[in-house]
Amino acid sequence: MTAAPVCLGRRAGRRCYPWAMNTPTLQARSSVLVGFDADDTLWKSEDYYRAAEKTFQSIVGEYIDITNPQTAGHLLAVERRNLGIYGYGAKGMTLSMLEAAIEMTSGRISTADISRILQLGHDTLRHPVDLLDGVREAVAAIATEHPVVLITKGDLFHQESKIKRAGLQDILPRIEIVSEKDPATYARVLAEFAVPMERFVMIGNSLRSDAEPVLALGGWAVHMPYAMTWAHEQEHGVAADHPRLRHVSCAAQWPQTVAAISALIEEGAHA
Amino acid sequence: MTAAPVCLGRRAGRRCYPWAMNTPTLQARSSVLVGFDADDTLWKSEDYYRAAEKTFQSIVGEYIDITNPQTAGHLLAVERRNLGIYGYGAKGMTLSMLEAAIEMTSGRISTADISRILQLGHDTLRHPVDLLDGVREAVAAIATEHPVVLITKGDLFHQESKIKRAGLQDILPRIEIVSEKDPATYARVLAEFAVPMERFVMIGNSLRSDAEPVLALGGWAVHMPYAMTWAHEQEHGVAADHPRLRHVSCAAQWPQTVAAISALIEEGAHA
Repeated sequence: MTAAPVCLGRRAGRRCYPWAMNTPTLQARSSVLVGFDADDTLWKSEDYYRAAEKTFQSIVGEYIDITNPQTAGHLLAVERRNLGIYGYGAKGMTLSMLEAAIEMTSGRISTADISRILQLGHDTLRHPVDLLDGVREAVAAIATEHPVVLITKGDLFHQESKIKRAGLQDILPRIEIVSEKDPATYARVLAEFAVPMERFVMIGNSLRSDAEPVLALGGWAVHMPYAMTWAHEQEHGVAADHPRLRHVSCAAQWPQTVAAISALIEEGAHA
Repeated sequence: MTAAPVCLGRRAGRRCYPWAMNTPTLQARSSVLVGFDADDTLWKSEDYYRAAEKTFQSIVGEYIDITNPQTAGHLLAVERRNLGIYGYGAKGMTLSMLEAAIEMTSGRISTADISRILQLGHDTLRHPVDLLDGVREAVAAIATEHPVVLITKGDLFHQESKIKRAGLQDILPRIEIVSEKDPATYARVLAEFAVPMERFVMIGNSLRSDAEPVLALGGWAVHMPYAMTWAHEQEHGVAADHPRLRHVSCAAQWPQTVAAISALIEEGAHA
């Protein structure tokens, strides 16, 4: 017998989340939804973008002095001015790199080097998907207790390819690929799950994208910093001691952190 | 009072589709789900890609004889070999154009012309969104009778931007952006809606993407050809007289066509 999909909370949601499907009884399952970021939370990503940037700098460095602070920041400036047209992801990065390289070299860059930059895009889109330590076990442990969802921004095609290559579909079957992680996006996703924000925990490496908008809406965040963060993601207004923010240093700490938050949520709900 | 979201059909679905939310009673609403393609079905798109291609040919034509059949097909060949890395959309097209231009000119293309190709990408991503004749009225008419969903492939960021600029969110609030329109994708989307395929009607301009996979799974398709079709979309194996395929020539015919299909579905269900 298959249990019917059910809705969490009393809000009129746009979709139901069917976690009842995999459990014998509804009561056995928590009504706290856990969201996971993907890049640099589940697997390495920024390393590959950084490596591409380093190669970009060395290519452009054959034409100009890239240690000059004015030129050093030019790629980021081009990427930012193009965000509204390209969005996030490796294809937009490659197009911005080409634009920046032509500008930075005043058009002197050779087509052989343009081809090398195009190849950087290919390489970044095909980078290996290496799960971070303990991720599979941690996600699996949380998924036995809570409904889970992957919420990731960036390029649909690339992210789907990485999720498949990571082999995480079984434990993370629900994927929301969004174009921007702002409060409006989280509010929409939570409404689709019919989960009130105060019953949502987001786990991720970016205070700007994974914590700030969720905390602003009344949700909970678990921050696991990654060794490197894209400059664009470093700007945020999150207080380190926010009462609904937890800090962890490895995936093995996720299950106990989520369990503790979940207990607080249930206490609050019954207080 | 807000009606609770409900599931259609007896299949265990992954999500519920909440069309009950906007209607006073469930019974007043059809249980046939209608899907719409976006590009060249709701608004012009291929025109802009074709215009970009034409400019591309004229740029490359300054270096080589592009009337030579071997060179004429080179861009499509590059786009196809990159589909598995870039997916669909204007960013992938631009990257493929750059790659093709360098190959076709044996690296002789100038950086000024590389910049012109980059600009083509910008222009295509920002093309105006012109709804085709009668689309708004037709979608609105169908949406009062049936649950509706937009199913479109391509680049998430670009498609979201077009949907917003088209101002269709109100009548088409549910959007599924998919990386490929194959049977597996349609099956997943329908499972999320908990709608059996035989109660699904897909309206679109591509026999390959909008009709063939839907018909193969037991659903219904309404084909409205667009004046131009990307070469890649011209390959299909759909019989023009397939019993669950209808042909229309303008959006004004959509509501009556869907009504007729819906009646057949209900007849079949009660037979």
